[in-house]
Amino acid sequence: MVHQKEIVLKNYRRGYHLITNVILENLPPLPDQGLLNIFVKHTSAGITLNENADPTVRTDFENFINKMIPEDDPVYIHTYEGSDDMPAHLKSSVIGASVTIPITNGRLNMGTWQGVYFCEFRNYGGQRKLVLTVYS
Amino acid sequence: MVHQKEIVLKNYRRGYHLITNVILENLPPLPDQGLLNIFVKHTSAGITLNENADPTVRTDFENFINKMIPEDDPVYIHTYEGSDDMPAHLKSSVIGASVTIPITNGRLNMGTWQGVYFCEFRNYGGQRKLVLTVYS
Amino acid sequence: MVHQKEIVLKNYRRGYHLITNVILENLPPLPDQGLLNIFVKHTSAGITLNENADPTVRTDFENFINKMIPEDDPVYIHTYEGSDDMPAHLKSSVIGASVTIPITNGRLNMGTWQGVYFCEFRNYGGQRKLVLTVYS
Repeated sequence: MVHQKEIVLKNYRRGYHLITNVILENLPPLPDQGLLNIFVKHTSAGITLNENADPTVRTDFENFINKMIPEDDPVYIHTYEGSDDMPAHLKSSVIGASVTIPITNGRLNMGTWQGVYFCEFRNYGGQRKLVLTVYS
Repeated sequence: MVHQKEIVLKNYRRGYHLITNVILENLPPLPDQGLLNIFVKHTSAGITLNENADPTVRTDFENFINKMIPEDDPVYIHTYEGSDDMPAHLKSSVIGASVTIPITNGRLNMGTWQGVYFCEFRNYGGQRKLVLTVYS
Repeated sequence: MVHQKEIVLKNYRRGYHLITNVILENLPPLPDQGLLNIFVKHTSAGITLNENADPTVRTDFENFINKMIPEDDPVYIHTYEGSDDMPAHLKSSVIGASVTIPITNGRLNMGTWQGVYFCEFRNYGGQRKLVLTVYS
């Protein structure tokens, strides 16, 4: 059995955003056992799981990953969409465009401290689309 | 329902290659709703989704990720297979060995600009094997 | 059909550990065709596939990724859980919290050199939980 839904996120500013509740609000009643796949339909945004309690973790993600994958690196040729564009593509592949989460007893079976991070890598990314697929 | 196929890619040179059409040509008729998993059976290659229009994005991937994960780093002990080997293993885990893509209305439900990149991290990687699994 | 099992790993020291056999020992009889998802319920550990033969690859992972994502970077604000904590969160999202592996003819269909690496990013991570989900 597959249940699928495409959703449009509100505009998020550049950075890492905890969207666990947005995902939960858009899921159907969950099966006893299964998996949820969350897929980002973009090449300059990403999705990952990380610490859900302290917002400074998300700030540190933004600041550190901007150092690891900087703007204006001299090797970049693809620069005509702005300084934030090519780093956004690289971050998208390093962080990833989807996550898969087990469903157990009708709930997402994440650890206590895990939450879903939506990662907006562009300065003005606009409204981003996700596809949620539950299979059981 | 699971449909699975193992394919062998032609030799790709080191770098990032758009293989969306190779994948599509090897898929069975797709279900109304489901997921596709593409899996690379190697530890020095990878697979990711990224920008499908401008080939300079792929060139920038090759050049930037070679800086982020360089050859001949002094910490490497595993060097007997050549300078390109240990960086290839690291890149494989940073980029990933599989992607999962939703299927909707009988088509891969990627964003307009998303394509499948096969990532060859070795200088002479040879013929690489992928496993395509469609489930619905 | 979904079969799911949650397991608790023994304490692993910080680093990269080949756990293919631990996974195999905890799987049910595998279907003819399907997929296995291995999910880590933590935000400071990870899971990936990489080279299963030479243990120096795992040593190089530890040493190189510690350089790529160092302790005590001046941008970190989230420092109160120790120098190893914020880098562990970053590594978890760069390496990933789950892997998906095809099942073919009742076996994990990995390449000859692929093994499952459990990645412990904390100095004292304790006993870590994994969820194994087989679907067919």
